[in-house]
Parts: sequence; C-alpha cells; structure tokens
Amino acid sequence: MIRVSIENLDKHIGEEVKISGWLYNKRSSGKIRFLVVRDGSGLLQSVIVKGNVTDSVFDLFDTITQESSLSVFGKIKKEERAPGGFEMEVTNVEIIHLAKEYPITPKEHGVEFLMDHRHLWLRSSRQHAVLRVRHQIIKAIREFFDNRGFVLMDAPIFTPAACEGTSTLFETDYFDLGKAYLTQSGQLYGEAGAMAHGKVYVFGPTFRAEKSKTRRHLTEFWMVEPEVAFNDLNDNMELAEEFLEHIVLSVLKHRQPELKILERNTKFLETVKKPLPKITYDEAIEILKKKGIAFEWGNDLGGTDETVISEQFDRPVIVHRYPAQVKAFYMKRDPQNPKLALAMDVLAPEGYGEIIGGSQREDDYDTLINRLDEHKLPHAPFEWYLDLRRYGSVPHAGFGLGIERTVGWICGLDHVRETIPFPRMIYRLNP
Amino acid sequence: MIRVSIENLDKHIGEEVKISGWLYNKRSSGKIRFLVVRDGSGLLQSVIVKGNVTDSVFDLFDTITQESSLSVFGKIKKEERAPGGFEMEVTNVEIIHLAKEYPITPKEHGVEFLMDHRHLWLRSSRQHAVLRVRHQIIKAIREFFDNRGFVLMDAPIFTPAACEGTSTLFETDYFDLGKAYLTQSGQLYGEAGAMAHGKVYVFGPTFRAEKSKTRRHLTEFWMVEPEVAFNDLNDNMELAEEFLEHIVLSVLKHRQPELKILERNTKFLETVKKPLPKITYDEAIEILKKKGIAFEWGNDLGGTDETVISEQFDRPVIVHRYPAQVKAFYMKRDPQNPKLALAMDVLAPEGYGEIIGGSQREDDYDTLINRLDEHKLPHAPFEWYLDLRRYGSVPHAGFGLGIERTVGWICGLDHVRETIPFPRMIYRLNP
Repeated sequence: MIRVSIENLDKHIGEEVKISGWLYNKRSSGKIRFLVVRDGSGLLQSVIVKGNVTDSVFDLFDTITQESSLSVFGKIKKEERAPGGFEMEVTNVEIIHLAKEYPITPKEHGVEFLMDHRHLWLRSSRQHAVLRVRHQIIKAIREFFDNRGFVLMDAPIFTPAACEGTSTLFETDYFDLGKAYLTQSGQLYGEAGAMAHGKVYVFGPTFRAEKSKTRRHLTEFWMVEPEVAFNDLNDNMELAEEFLEHIVLSVLKHRQPELKILERNTKFLETVKKPLPKITYDEAIEILKKKGIAFEWGNDLGGTDETVISEQFDRPVIVHRYPAQVKAFYMKRDPQNPKLALAMDVLAPEGYGEIIGGSQREDDYDTLINRLDEHKLPHAPFEWYLDLRRYGSVPHAGFGLGIERTVGWICGLDHVRETIPFPRMIYRLNP
Repeated sequence: MIRVSIENLDKHIGEEVKISGWLYNKRSSGKIRFLVVRDGSGLLQSVIVKGNVTDSVFDLFDTITQESSLSVFGKIKKEERAPGGFEMEVTNVEIIHLAKEYPITPKEHGVEFLMDHRHLWLRSSRQHAVLRVRHQIIKAIREFFDNRGFVLMDAPIFTPAACEGTSTLFETDYFDLGKAYLTQSGQLYGEAGAMAHGKVYVFGPTFRAEKSKTRRHLTEFWMVEPEVAFNDLNDNMELAEEFLEHIVLSVLKHRQPELKILERNTKFLETVKKPLPKITYDEAIEILKKKGIAFEWGNDLGGTDETVISEQFDRPVIVHRYPAQVKAFYMKRDPQNPKLALAMDVLAPEGYGEIIGGSQREDDYDTLINRLDEHKLPHAPFEWYLDLRRYGSVPHAGFGLGIERTVGWICGLDHVRETIPFPRMIYRLNP
C-alpha cells in the first residue's frame, strides 16, 4: 500500500492508503476510537470502528501514547468536520515506537520550560505554523529579488578589524591573523557586489552581542540586504514598498491555514500595498509631540517612540531623512539640508517597530574620508571600501530587513523567540 | 530617456535608450570609437561616430579610463558580432566618475594580489560568471526542496558544548553562559525539524577551524542539509541523485553564457542523470587495488583515493556502506553487517572529490547510548537529541551538500576560493 502525505490526501479520496506519522491526540466515543495523526504536512483524523479491525489492533488504542510514531492504513473520505477536511476508515494500525510520557501536555507550561524543550515544542501546531510562515516569507523574499534580476551575494561571516568598537561584536581567534569578528551586516560587501552585478542581495545570519533582553532582540538573527547601483533614496523607498507588498501577499496567498491557527487578524496585513505612507523624521517628532511625548530634535527614535508613531497608521510607515548625527558614517547627506542623512526606516504597524533600515550611500571619496574622520574611524580597514569610490563610483542605495521581526509582525507574535527554530538570546544557548 | 538594463535590450531594438554602467574596455578604428560598457547584467558595445556626437563628447573617449562610471545614450540595433549581440549608435555620453588607474589590468596578476583586490576582482567576467552560476545553484537547490514540500529549518550558528573535541571549532565568549561554538553542521537540529515537519532542509554557513591549506578547504562555507522522516539509505541515495540532476540541469538550462565564459566543457555535466552509479566501500577499494594503490580495509577514503575512484566514472558516483569505525556516532549500522554504517558519499567526477556526505540515522535509543559511549562522548549535551529517540522515534536519513565544492565542480574551477564572494581561509580574512 502506498504511503502518502496528509497534504496530498485530496488526490486519494476513496483509495486505501498508508499514513506514517505521530499521534497528535486520541479520543473515544462508544465503539469508535479516533486517532488524530500528524505527519508534518498536516493532521488526519483516523477512525477505528470495532469489528473493522482485529481485536488486537482495536486494543492498541489504550496503549498508544501522545507522540508515539505509527502507521495507519485505510480508505480516505472527505469529512468537512475533521481537522484538514479528510478522514480515514482504519483497517490497520502499526506502532513504530511507543513514546515515553511526553513532557509537553495541553496544560500551560512556562516559557523557559518550553524553550528548554524547543526540539519537541517545534511539533506543536502553533510553532509548526510559525515556521511554515517563516519559510514562506524567506521564499517570497528570494522570489522577489530573483525575478527582478538581483544576484545573490553571500557576504562573509568572519570580518577583520572591529571598526565601531567591539562591545556588541562576537569575536573568535583566527589562526595567526589575530581576531575575527562575526558580521553585524553584509552591507559593505553588498556595495562591492552592486558595483560588479548592478543589483545584489545579501542574505544570511548576522550577530549582535547586545545585552538587550527585550522581546525584539536575538543575538543571532537573519537579515536580507538588497543593494542597487544607480538607486537614490526615492528608488530605495519604492523598492522597500514593493518588497513588503510582495512578502505579505505571498503569505496571505499561501499560508491562510497557518494564519488561522495563529489566530492572526489579517485585516492589518491586507492593507500592505504600495504606496505606503511616508513621513519625514521632522513629521514623526511632530506626531510624538502631539501625543505629549517630550522629544528633542537630533535624537534617534527609541523603541517606544517607534511604537507610538506606528500606531498612528494601519500599515507600515516609512520615516525618512533622519539627523545625520544618529546615523552611520556611510549614509549620504541630503543636499537640501546637510544636517539630514538620506536614511529611511520602515516601522511595522501594531507596535512591531522597525523592520527595515536603509539609506542612500555616500558615493564621493573625499566626503567619505571626512565622515570616517568625524566618526573617529581609522582609514586602513576601509581602504577596500574606499576603492569603490576610487574606481567608477556611482550613486547607490540599499536596506536591510530583519527576518525574525518580520515573521513576528506577520504572525502577530509577542516575542521574536518563536520566529526561528532555535533562538539564541543573552540567557539562551540551548538546546 | 529611459534607463534600461543590458540584459533587457532585446525589448528595445530600434529605440533610443540610456545605459548606465562602467567602462569595460575601449578601442578606436579610424573615425569610429568603441566603448564596451558593463552594467552588471551584461556587456554592450557602444559606437561613437565622429559627427554623430558633439566634438566634446567625441573627445571624452581619450579621457575615459577603465572602470569609470558613465551613461551612454543612443539607438539600439542587433549586431551579431558584438558581445551580447547588440550595439548602440551613441548620441551622447555622460561621465559619472572618472576612475583612477585601475589596479586589475589584462596582464597576469598573482593570486594573492587578486585576492587582496577581491572587491574589484568580482567585476571581471570570469568571477562575474562564477557568482551567477553559484546563485543559480542555490536557487535550484531551494526550488528542488520547496517543490517537494520540504520546510526550511534554519539551524543555529551558535551551539553549546563542544562534543567531539574543540580542535576544529571556532569558539566565542557567550555572556554568562561560557563558550559558544560555531556550527560545523545543522544536521542534529535538522533531525528535530524532520520529526516536526516530516521533510526539512537546513541551509546556512558552517565553520571549520581546520589548518588545511588545500584547494578544497575554506574555514567558512555554505552547506544544505535535507533530513527526511521515514527515509532509509536507499531513499536517501535516490533523493541525492534527483537533487544533483535537478541542480545541474538548472545550470545547463539557465547559465550557458556563463559556462561559455568559463570555457566549461559541459560534456561532463550532461551525464548527470538518475540513476547514478552506486558502489559499496568494498567495491571502491577494489578499484584502488586494481590501480595499484595499497589500501587497508577499515580506513577512510582520502582525497587522493576519492580522486582515483571518481576518475573511473563520467558522472558522480555514490559510495555507500563504509566501515562504521570511520563514521560518526549517529549513523545507523547495516543490519546485514554491523561493521558497516549505512553511510553514503557522493564523489564528483573529474577529480572534484566528495560533494555529498550522508547516512541513515540511528533511531534506537539504547543503541545510540552505546554509540555515544563507544565514541567516549558525554550524554548530557545530547539529552535533547536523545529525546528524538524517546518520543516517537522513526527511521530517518539525510545528507549534506557543500555549496562551494559543488560550484567549483560545475564551473570547472581549480580552487574553491573563487566560488564564494569573499573567501575565508587559514591565511585569508581580508577584505
């Protein structure tokens, strides 16, 4: 008898099939026994009727424990009321492995307990749904760039010379070359890639040794960073809008069952369409002032400020033209007002905060040298980066999107720790 | 005038367009000047005829240096003899930035010089082609798994407790939790994922602090690792065959121009079709003996052995059932002969060596405990992994494919250092 996946059952109605998986739960009602089986692709209600199976198979029902592995055999029929929409009339059950008492039960568990059992917690329907949405988001991201002629540019994880202080960098001994530092962003390498391929995206894990213990911080997180030659700040904002629209549409199109499991109100996702609202930093602090929040021009927006601003909108909002003093050395200044950097952040709605940060880059050699000096940065580690301004410099721009924050927002989660299979935080390196 | 990409010129024949990019090279012939422009998506020959442009534009030809950034304007026509198949009749040229004397010239440079200038070397046509093939391979890999219902499972980079000795592990301080080690493989985490999602793939960078200075070693390299619940060794070999066929076909279909630039003889790629030849370890050492190579049963195959074996085949060859003593603790033993592990390696032809390593995993709790003891490994760091055998253990199998070795093989390169944008090796951490 052929083994099929639960997700493909619609092609096997009326057929006898074999499903292999794990016991999700069981219940009995008179002479009928129900085994709900999960195989990773979905849930199947299999129905054991006394007389349809041997007595020894019928009696297995009492023995079998949660998360035991098993195969069920029988005919598939449509059943609207069953989870997944199908039901199996069981003719045989084979137990593969009888599970010991499963530590995760329907009762409430503390977060630390669940995180200690993350390798098992992944099997729960909510965690299962989150990781399928994560996969969809990552797939949509790659699709978006691949379909527009961007070239994938894997940036190095090991980087030489810590430039902006080592306090938030993880370091490791690197043979006879001293220390290597784990990347915080592939952007500078992406810029070199854009000069070779025109349009590139960097996509990989990044690391921050921050002692932050908030619901938005991981020490290890994934980031995608497009970089485009000849793009200016406006092109960059437009790219970000189209990008977010594509990601959200893809999840809405392909992951409705998962969003339902997560009880996600998709009202706040269906609004994500180009054009998104765009406000300047100055307009953003006007909003804060109207809300009675004291805010001095020239400061960076904090997490709480971002929450207040984003709550004024029913979709992501782009804030642009920040004070140059709070932004990185490589950002180009606004020719209309050199106190401003041609920077942009995208704040997700419902208080999810910054999911994108980007800018047009400084492309003039002399100006960039001055910026390094103003930021008290040495020239030597940036010589290769300065080469990009020595040999055919062009206007260019890019941004970075944090995967875990984006998954958290789209799934409507309280904490980023559930957005990645094995999260790493200041107090968490296990399992 | 609209700016278009060179790769889209076939949609603009007879139109006046703007192309922005960099000067790849120039030459003159009588009253005609040729500027070959690259924009990252391709090369365009643009033709300046005296009289068709102003004198000052005509005179720009003498000024403009290699890799200067510029825009050329003019009408596009088909021209079979030109690189890319199109030509522009130039009406105007605008210089964006005049490059200083470009360090990479058509003359021969040493490898160290080129590696020191990797950020610029990426612009050369061979390096450009390699990275486009790399992108295609990665795209094909994700397509393959996504289309078969595999779920992406990003494994952690930071792992606790060094289990098999720290000599080849990079380590970093991790707050109050002691040391964290950079992952060498996401497999164990992939196994947890397979128990939750049925079929998963891990895809990310992995790290090895090996003091090897060979043409096959990087300290930082990317690996994709599928893991499938209910698969045995045969299923695993079949998956690997179909996987390699899909990757190679995708490159042959979409990257012919790049393979041509690389002067790759595709004869050795067109043979990559299921079924691939499969030989046991015992048969492999018979081959070595026939070639006069002394080899004792029970040793692992070395790089040279692999080269000799793979040279006997015109396509990748699968070697299976290795002596258990040279393989990892988690590999299941062959029930027909417990001295053998249900392991498999795929060796690429033309001497490229191992590109895939995999196995069926030990799924019995007691046996796995014995294996840990035989390998003198502590139990504590593996408690979570043992849980997968406590709670619904099932047969399962998987493998890992090294991206850089695969790119090297498909592109026909001598050294893996050209297969990744910014390679990291024992003596190389820059740029």
